Amino acid sequence: MITFNEIGIIRSPHKEREGAPIQPAGAVEFEGRVEVLPEFQEGLSDLDGFERIILLYHFHLSEGYSLMAKPFLDDTKRGLFSTRAPKRPNQIGISIVRLLGIEENIIHVKGIDIVDKTPLIDIKPYVPKFDAFPDSRAGWFDAGTRSTESTRADKRFTV
Amino acid sequence: MITFNEIGIIRSPHKEREGAPIQPAGAVEFEGRVEVLPEFQEGLSDLDGFERIILLYHFHLSEGYSLMAKPFLDDTKRGLFSTRAPKRPNQIGISIVRLLGIEENIIHVKGIDIVDKTPLIDIKPYVPKFDAFPDSRAGWFDAGTRSTESTRADKRFTV
Repeated sequence: MITFNEIGIIRSPHKEREGAPIQPAGAVEFEGRVEVLPEFQEGLSDLDGFERIILLYHFHLSEGYSLMAKPFLDDTKRGLFSTRAPKRPNQIGISIVRLLGIEENIIHVKGIDIVDKTPLIDIKPYVPKFDAFPDSRAGWFDAGTRSTESTRADKRFTV
Repeated sequence: MITFNEIGIIRSPHKEREGAPIQPAGAVEFEGRVEVLPEFQEGLSDLDGFERIILLYHFHLSEGYSLMAKPFLDDTKRGLFSTRAPKRPNQIGISIVRLLGIEENIIHVKGIDIVDKTPLIDIKPYVPKFDAFPDSRAGWFDAGTRSTESTRADKRFTV
């Protein structure tokens, strides 16, 4: 068993999972903030030079999972690990958001697809050399017919 | 407190942290495999259509942390959350690796910077639309003088 402790909380305009954007790509206009616990504030030094940050967080509203799941963007059941569905064996989420600015222990961000009051696990800087592979083949996503920008979460992973 | 369970183990040619590449960008030639526990094998369906996958894992060798740390790629102490250092409040790592093929519950991968026998927490598909921002500004990394490709881990995060 691996145990982590919340290092902060993510605040966003999405008060519940249903109706929320399903990825930052569908949430470009939404602003939110990451409230890091004051004891970790010093660790935010130098972060303001980055245009984007990687947020790792706990899908705290998710319980249970199915190894084959119908994603929001498709009508076919897919292997769970080929999806970004929140109901997973370990309920960990990852979102890359745009950094607007930092005030003390508060990080202002844009492009947030995360539900309000989600527990924060870690923050990492987004480094294109490590993280950007724009031409990478993306399986069923490439063939998908539904748009990430307009698709919103429904009840499938919340009931 | 958030608890996760290991869903598999990562096998690699890097038997210890010291001397290991510090990012997949410095490990393109290294092959390894992800041994997912058989009970999760069904969840790997459809994953073989993806060129890259995101591995989330436990930095199981890391203990303790400092909020200001000197990264492998720099000589200046930086705020911990602006680095990818393994010693963090929550010891969670993320690497984007190239998928070579899947045989039952074994995923063969390339470009592995992870230490052998690292516990696996999650696998997510790499989707350029969500994850690729090649022009994103990257703070002190952009100004860095040391090469990710040739820099290897030393003792700084293991002792």
